[in-house]
Amino acid sequence: MKRILDTKVKKQGSEHSTLISLNDILIGEGYFTVIAGPCALESEELAVETAKAVEHAGAKVFRCSLFKPRTSPYSYQGFGLDGVKLLKLLHAESNLLLETEILSTDHLEVLAGEADILRVGSRNMDNYELLKAVGRTNKPIILKRNMSATLEEFLLAAEYILSVGNEKVILCERGIRTFENYTRNTLDILAVPALKELSHLPVIVDPSHSTGKSSLVPAASKAALAAGADGLIIEVHPNPRDSYSDGEQSLDIPTFEKLMKELSDIATLLGKKSFQQVLH
Amino acid sequence: MKRILDTKVKKQGSEHSTLISLNDILIGEGYFTVIAGPCALESEELAVETAKAVEHAGAKVFRCSLFKPRTSPYSYQGFGLDGVKLLKLLHAESNLLLETEILSTDHLEVLAGEADILRVGSRNMDNYELLKAVGRTNKPIILKRNMSATLEEFLLAAEYILSVGNEKVILCERGIRTFENYTRNTLDILAVPALKELSHLPVIVDPSHSTGKSSLVPAASKAALAAGADGLIIEVHPNPRDSYSDGEQSLDIPTFEKLMKELSDIATLLGKKSFQQVLH
Amino acid sequence: MKRILDTKVKKQGSEHSTLISLNDILIGEGYFTVIAGPCALESEELAVETAKAVEHAGAKVFRCSLFKPRTSPYSYQGFGLDGVKLLKLLHAESNLLLETEILSTDHLEVLAGEADILRVGSRNMDNYELLKAVGRTNKPIILKRNMSATLEEFLLAAEYILSVGNEKVILCERGIRTFENYTRNTLDILAVPALKELSHLPVIVDPSHSTGKSSLVPAASKAALAAGADGLIIEVHPNPRDSYSDGEQSLDIPTFEKLMKELSDIATLLGKKSFQQVLH
Amino acid sequence: MKRILDTKVKKQGSEHSTLISLNDILIGEGYFTVIAGPCALESEELAVETAKAVEHAGAKVFRCSLFKPRTSPYSYQGFGLDGVKLLKLLHAESNLLLETEILSTDHLEVLAGEADILRVGSRNMDNYELLKAVGRTNKPIILKRNMSATLEEFLLAAEYILSVGNEKVILCERGIRTFENYTRNTLDILAVPALKELSHLPVIVDPSHSTGKSSLVPAASKAALAAGADGLIIEVHPNPRDSYSDGEQSLDIPTFEKLMKELSDIATLLGKKSFQQVLH
Repeated sequence: MKRILDTKVKKQGSEHSTLISLNDILIGEGYFTVIAGPCALESEELAVETAKAVEHAGAKVFRCSLFKPRTSPYSYQGFGLDGVKLLKLLHAESNLLLETEILSTDHLEVLAGEADILRVGSRNMDNYELLKAVGRTNKPIILKRNMSATLEEFLLAAEYILSVGNEKVILCERGIRTFENYTRNTLDILAVPALKELSHLPVIVDPSHSTGKSSLVPAASKAALAAGADGLIIEVHPNPRDSYSDGEQSLDIPTFEKLMKELSDIATLLGKKSFQQVLH
Repeated sequence: MKRILDTKVKKQGSEHSTLISLNDILIGEGYFTVIAGPCALESEELAVETAKAVEHAGAKVFRCSLFKPRTSPYSYQGFGLDGVKLLKLLHAESNLLLETEILSTDHLEVLAGEADILRVGSRNMDNYELLKAVGRTNKPIILKRNMSATLEEFLLAAEYILSVGNEKVILCERGIRTFENYTRNTLDILAVPALKELSHLPVIVDPSHSTGKSSLVPAASKAALAAGADGLIIEVHPNPRDSYSDGEQSLDIPTFEKLMKELSDIATLLGKKSFQQVLH
Repeated sequence: MKRILDTKVKKQGSEHSTLISLNDILIGEGYFTVIAGPCALESEELAVETAKAVEHAGAKVFRCSLFKPRTSPYSYQGFGLDGVKLLKLLHAESNLLLETEILSTDHLEVLAGEADILRVGSRNMDNYELLKAVGRTNKPIILKRNMSATLEEFLLAAEYILSVGNEKVILCERGIRTFENYTRNTLDILAVPALKELSHLPVIVDPSHSTGKSSLVPAASKAALAAGADGLIIEVHPNPRDSYSDGEQSLDIPTFEKLMKELSDIATLLGKKSFQQVLH
Repeated sequence: MKRILDTKVKKQGSEHSTLISLNDILIGEGYFTVIAGPCALESEELAVETAKAVEHAGAKVFRCSLFKPRTSPYSYQGFGLDGVKLLKLLHAESNLLLETEILSTDHLEVLAGEADILRVGSRNMDNYELLKAVGRTNKPIILKRNMSATLEEFLLAAEYILSVGNEKVILCERGIRTFENYTRNTLDILAVPALKELSHLPVIVDPSHSTGKSSLVPAASKAALAAGADGLIIEVHPNPRDSYSDGEQSLDIPTFEKLMKELSDIATLLGKKSFQQVLH
């Protein structure tokens, strides 16, 4: 890890950790934050219904992707920029923070104007122009690890954001590509404690893309918490079978509610301030 | 997973699980069993000292490898068959069950005569002659996943043992080989719930070989428990720095004791019968 | 490969192949085209010197990268857009076609105005906004495979370009990421015949990034030709040791000249029109 | 590659290469030897028919596997030790050398008594007891790389054979396991020049297991030769579709004959003594 020696992402001493504050939410060491929502937004009604359900279950941030980068150009690509009005609606209808994926510097102004957290997806981890652009905002950025990035490369991608002034970066492990194909990707669970010993940045896990199978999402979520993750980003959909994308990996509402209860109990045992916490 | 359709390893219904009973220990669903000990036995004194320490900390089985297969023919290869007298001594000096690695059918009679559990290592997962030989004994067999085996191949290797009559197989996830090299291997944590939904056999995790770094072993162990594993096989050494092999991944005694306490609390919360359980 | 069934990249019959014509150069089945030049342009003098040397050795296209995406934000990042005047100079000083990497849609107009071929690098294979932007030009596009892309994903990324109207896409295999680390990447040589049986598009190989070691570049280049590749993109530098980036994988001029002679002989034997061919 | 510094496999100077002489066949640098035959022997008639056909096409060694290690215990496992009489018959009916796979030390005496070359398969690359056993014979040994072995591990496995006295080891690259699944494995073509620069031992390639698709075998074979391999081990079957195992990757006789002609021409161009050579 020689190349991270003189970087801003590097941990300076065992107590060094960055806590990101956003309204009444804290993200980082000692806390556990759940971000939940559908893979991609599909309609106004569905968005509001899902938001209310995940808020009721204890999530504090809503996953609301307007763009859905797809392997094939002929697959559903998401709402597009028009969906910004949906973000406004969701802000009006819930107390959830909103996080959304950004694919292009062209969309930065509009998205940063409405969303609370921006996400740079796995496919764009090496899109340095985009990293520098979000680095010039003051928004918290979720940076997802590329499927074939080493931890060093992942941290140096984060450095592109920090190096231009934005230190509010949340690292997200979402599975790496290996020969194993029973799961969609291989969740590199050890990336969690490894990143936490190398860097002061918060680390969260995406149990949905890493497993690709809803039956494995609860185990992945609990493992992430036990391994020291500071949060999760989970796909939840009222009717996973009708989802336009990634239905097989989305949890339905009752399963999500049950999981949240289990996570809350484990988080309490581990001395993490539960995700239900509110700062007064 | 078409190829496991007509196998004995396949789970038949959600309640189907194999519980292996050995003296007062039960291994399988609902229990959590910790196997601990040095990478390879080095001396009589060290073996007894380590055994007593891990027993005191709550382990129920002692890892006591007489043979240590090494990448280079010039590295320390272990005690060899002479070490069998050590197994006798350990049985006399502690209440621990003893598990040991078997490398060759030539050693089967001697090792099965003294050890309680036999382990087939990753390098031998595809050594079908050996699998069939241990399948003809009535000893519990820990079968470690090869670094490049898919879950299907892993289960079919277990089938070689079951197909000749021995159903007491414990599957062990120990890390797979990927591009990531900060850790020695990539712990495929999702293999745990995946194997538990595909098969009725107990599943344990080796947090030592998968991480290769003692600093990551506690996180890996807790993640394994939270993901549903039925136990662990951990490397513990009184003086890891003096170890003949794998010192960097071995826990010292105080760290192991602290970890056991944390695991016990989580296991209790998860409704697992704690590893301290004794059947009366 | 179900997902490529209804795509424009798909091969329709064994004789279906796309030949890209550019001035007096043909790229595709039956031809063998060598693109050569430094990893990134460093100075005017060096650029002209290298261009003349590779032209003399038989290359037909000059690799002239103004931008050099780097893992660390603190490494040399290339000339930047100012370097466009270098492209003009190179056009004046040689008969070589010029190819250059494009990182951002913001640079498209300037780069497409001067370069003959645009390259989308591995890191941007999934940057769909960029793919669609270059798809709206009429420039030949070299699309490099992402280090973790399956062949299907690679072809579907190319489809993003073809789907908006530009059919002049050249697929470039440049090594995938595996556990093996003696080489920088693992050259997936079978991708060459596999892509040629799946698609009608030309396929070239980057023997420099795939090996990361100049000693292996000649073997990789000859293997690519023997496996059916339609060309190569090779890093050449007059003084590899002084290179700002990737010096260990660059060939010096005499080694490049020797290799070109060997490739020419093999190409002739294989019935490929040699890379020295000129259409009259 | 620190661990190979003091080994017998290490190349001592650029001219250092081992040439294995066997009857009138030489295997190693400067030669190109083709081993061909069915995946596993199926019947006496088929064996003799295939042997005559591959001999006629220019192969010098016959692949005649009596044992076929299979992922599932319920798949065809080969002829077994009874097949030794087939080796006698093949010796009587052709001038081919015979090579066969050995799975267990128990079979060593019988197999070494009849076969000319012994093969240790990928699954047994780490079976050190077997390596040492074949190391105590004076037979040439083909050692196949394990699917997840680094080049260093591969060379150290060979060292197990050399360390006990047998220097006649032929290294065989047969594909490694990666995320790519269009091909059965990923042929690591760069392993050929890499092994040749690290070691003095002959290096051959298995184009059948690495591709898993007969349509890709010719390209893989030519790439191996161009990359510097000293030979091939190819699966050939008169009626691939009727093969008990691996039919999709076996060449039929006419395709094999055509390939042999092409290989001969390339070998001649490259200054390799053609595989048709006979020493007088």
